[in-house]
Formats: sequence, C-alpha cells, structure tokens
Amino acid sequence: MTHKVQEKQTVAVACLQFEPRFGEVEANLAAIDRLAREAAAKGAKILVLPELADTGYVFEAADELQQLAAPIPQGRPSQALIALAAELGVYIAAGLCEKAGDTFYNSAIFCGPEGYLGTFRKLHLWNKEKLFFRSGDLGLPVFDTVYGKVGVAICYDGWFPETFRGLVAAGAELICVPTNWVPIPDQPAGAEPMANILHKAAAHSNGVAIACADRVGIERGQPFLGCSLIVGPRGWPLAGPASPTNPEILIADVMFGDLENQRRVSERNNVWEDRRTDLYN
Amino acid sequence: MTHKVQEKQTVAVACLQFEPRFGEVEANLAAIDRLAREAAAKGAKILVLPELADTGYVFEAADELQQLAAPIPQGRPSQALIALAAELGVYIAAGLCEKAGDTFYNSAIFCGPEGYLGTFRKLHLWNKEKLFFRSGDLGLPVFDTVYGKVGVAICYDGWFPETFRGLVAAGAELICVPTNWVPIPDQPAGAEPMANILHKAAAHSNGVAIACADRVGIERGQPFLGCSLIVGPRGWPLAGPASPTNPEILIADVMFGDLENQRRVSERNNVWEDRRTDLYN
Repeated sequence: MTHKVQEKQTVAVACLQFEPRFGEVEANLAAIDRLAREAAAKGAKILVLPELADTGYVFEAADELQQLAAPIPQGRPSQALIALAAELGVYIAAGLCEKAGDTFYNSAIFCGPEGYLGTFRKLHLWNKEKLFFRSGDLGLPVFDTVYGKVGVAICYDGWFPETFRGLVAAGAELICVPTNWVPIPDQPAGAEPMANILHKAAAHSNGVAIACADRVGIERGQPFLGCSLIVGPRGWPLAGPASPTNPEILIADVMFGDLENQRRVSERNNVWEDRRTDLYN
Repeated sequence: MTHKVQEKQTVAVACLQFEPRFGEVEANLAAIDRLAREAAAKGAKILVLPELADTGYVFEAADELQQLAAPIPQGRPSQALIALAAELGVYIAAGLCEKAGDTFYNSAIFCGPEGYLGTFRKLHLWNKEKLFFRSGDLGLPVFDTVYGKVGVAICYDGWFPETFRGLVAAGAELICVPTNWVPIPDQPAGAEPMANILHKAAAHSNGVAIACADRVGIERGQPFLGCSLIVGPRGWPLAGPASPTNPEILIADVMFGDLENQRRVSERNNVWEDRRTDLYN
C-alpha cells in the first residue's frame, strides 16, 4: 500500500433541505432527484439529504416500518440514489429507513460515482425512535472519496462529542449530518437553535467541516426546525442557516487536505494535537 | 460512609469579571476583595474569578514567574482568598499563578467556608503559556461543597469536550471556568465569541451548569474578550454575556440536586444516560 499525499482542494458541498412526505417514498425520491440535479448543476460534488428522507420521520406503528423500510443497498431508495450519484458524478449521504432482516435502523447510505460505499446506522436514538428502531451497531465508519475521507452522523448523534471525536480520529475531514431536528425543551424564543450551536462547537473543537441537512414542515403534528447549516473547520458558518420553514439548497466550498492549517488556532496550538490523550482517549 | 440524598436547591453563582494588572498582585487582590464583597452582599454563594487573577496573564520571561508566582495554598493570594471565603461564607474558584518547587502551573484554587478544598491545574496550555508553565498533572478533580460537587476548568481546557465529560462523570453539577479568552483566528466580525458557543454546547451535551469568568482590558498588547457567561444545564444563558470591555459582576441562580430533570431532553431521552458507553468511554 502506497502512502498518497492528499491534494489540497476545495469541494462544493450541498445540503438539500426539503420536506419529505410521510409514506410517499416515490414522491420523496422524485423530490430528491430534482434537488440533486439542481445542486449538481451548480457544481456541488457532495450532497447531503435529511434523515429518513425516503419515508418521512413520524412512525406510529411497527407495520408502517414493515411496509416502508427497505434494505441498503438493495432496496429501491438506495438503488435510485446510487444511480443518481453515478449519473451526476457526485457523492450522496442520505438518511434512509433501513430494513435488515427483521430489524429496522435509522440509517444513512453513502454512495458516489464508484457506487455504494457504505452505511451508517444512527447510534443515539431520539424519543419514539426507540420504539421502532434498533440502535446503530456499525460504529463510526468513514468513507473514502476522491477528495478525502467523509464521515456521517444522524441528528441526535451530534449531541454527543464522542461522535465527532471518533469520526475525526478515523480521518474524516467532512462530516455529513442528515437530520430531522425538532424543538427541544426550554429553547428561549428567538434563540439560535441548540442544534446549530452544537455543530459549530464540534467543528471548532475538532477542526472539521460539518454539513447538516435538515428537513422542514410539520408531519403528523411534529414540527421540524429547518436551519440547515454548513460550518467550516473553525466552527463558523460557510453557508446557512437555511430557512426554518422552506426548502432550500445550501452550497459551500469545503477544504480538503489542509488539516494542519485548519487545526492551528495559535502559533503554538493545534486543537487536535493538543488533546491530552495521556488523560483521556 | 452514609449515602446522603442531595437536596434540590438553587444557589446564586457569581462571575467577577475585572481587569487584573500585570504584576500588581496586591492591587489585584484588593480588586478581588471588593468585587467578592459586592457579590456576596447580593447573595452570591459561589464566586468565580478570571484566570491568573492574582498576577495578570502576559508573562514574557521566566524570572517574572519566579518573582510573582506563589504556592497554593500557602502563598499570599491563596491565603487572602481562603480568609475571604471564610469571612463571607462563600466558595471561591480563582485562577492563580502557582509555584510548586521549581515548577509553575496555570492553576485555580477552590476554597470555601471550610477553608482550602483543592487545586486545579490547567490541562491544555495556550500559546506562550507553553513556554512558562507545565501542563496540569492533577487530572479533573471535583470539590465537595454543601450544595453539591463543583469542578473547575481553565480557558482553553473548555475547547476539549473531554474536560466536561470527565468533570461531570466525577459528579460535578457546576463547572467554574476562570478564563482569559483572547481573540482567535477567523472570528467573523460581530459573531458571538466561539468561547461562548463552546460552553453553551458543553453545558447542553452534559446537562451541567457552567460559569465562565473572563477578564477585560489590554495587557502588554494582548486584548481580552470579556463576555463572561453563566449557562444553565440546557446550554442557555442564565446571565450574560457580560460586557466585552468593562468590569462586571454576573449573578445567576444555579440548580443543584436536579440532575435527572436537567438531563431530560425528551420523554425518552436523558442526554447523559444516552451516551453509547458501549462504544466510547
């Protein structure tokens, strides 16, 4: 195995914020197809879609999962995305409702021009997801792209700093976050969503770019926050936050192959190297 | 040893933002004395002071440390704070320049009505501190108060999520952060300081209150950010941010003994218990 020196380059990353309709898989795939073509036409090379973008979010009964979930990568949603990635020459991280035998996972596919590259299964389940999904059992994989390594996390995974630590330790330079952010208790009126704050902090502390693609709309009474956000490796927004209510495509240039510079926060400080790994790991 | 069920109660916590003068230890102790009395008169029971509040921050030569640093708790600054805590019936977390034999640490004393309770030594050194101080070797201690356990971290320690994880795992319900925040690269004009963002995120992800006491002013050409902040366990400000330029006392009621409620973020989610300790630790 030869050591490849990674080329420093910017890559246009897009978050495709839209409103999936519950249970309408074909309509959702059509919406994704349209948004993906629009983003690719604008030059985007890595596309991030919301959590459970194929089925919608608010499951109320197990038989809805039996009916709607599909295997990754054999199922219809995966195959549609894999074909789209190949045709457009882009990478896609998309939240999908995964059926694996008798088990269901809140997952994300990662695919690219090369085809299917892997699956991430949400590690930290939110609220009623615990009734229907099994917690992720694939750890924190990172996926090789021609630009560099990319990781995936889903929604509530971002509440746990270990998610980002693990992905960055594995080499991720960009973390794609399919999400369905919901209002949380005690959010003061008019305050920036905690979800945005958490990802700014995580990006800064790890020197990593993070692209969060949220959904909008109200589904079965559940409102979602929108406010999709792409943050750079110092934690500042590169694009967004997007609208809290309307579909929107965010695009930003994300740098790959420049870790040493991105993690340098002072003449003598590299925020990644400064970790006290003698005390914690 | 008997297990004491902790009483749920609010405790007034104060951050004493001021402008230490470099090398003027007696003048700084006098300023601290005045601010502490004012905060105590307003009901504050736990007082947080900035980093290196006794000596000032910008050391330029080792002999300045030889001249200004003092042992904890035997030195003059420690003894003044211990006497003040006893007289006022308060706990004090204050950044002090520590001399320990031939070694210097960027430390904080924690003392209370009971006297000296312990020392924290900054774990992650910032920029030129690396020239003059040794990295902390006392880990992440927590200190027992009559209200509950309190932890301490100093400035750049807050850039590392493990700092908060470690203190909260050890039982801290409040983390006092003596700090001397400085401008960091690429902060967009008018943006909220990343320091504030990081501590909101840390508070929310850990369900812990955090009280950051910063300094103000320009010392030997180095500007400081002010913007001291007390955040509650959901990450929202309880008081502050304080002025970026002027001395200011922030006071807020912090709840102790209510962890289960504070960590509950949905009907089925406790943000602390939801950690995947099977995957990380």
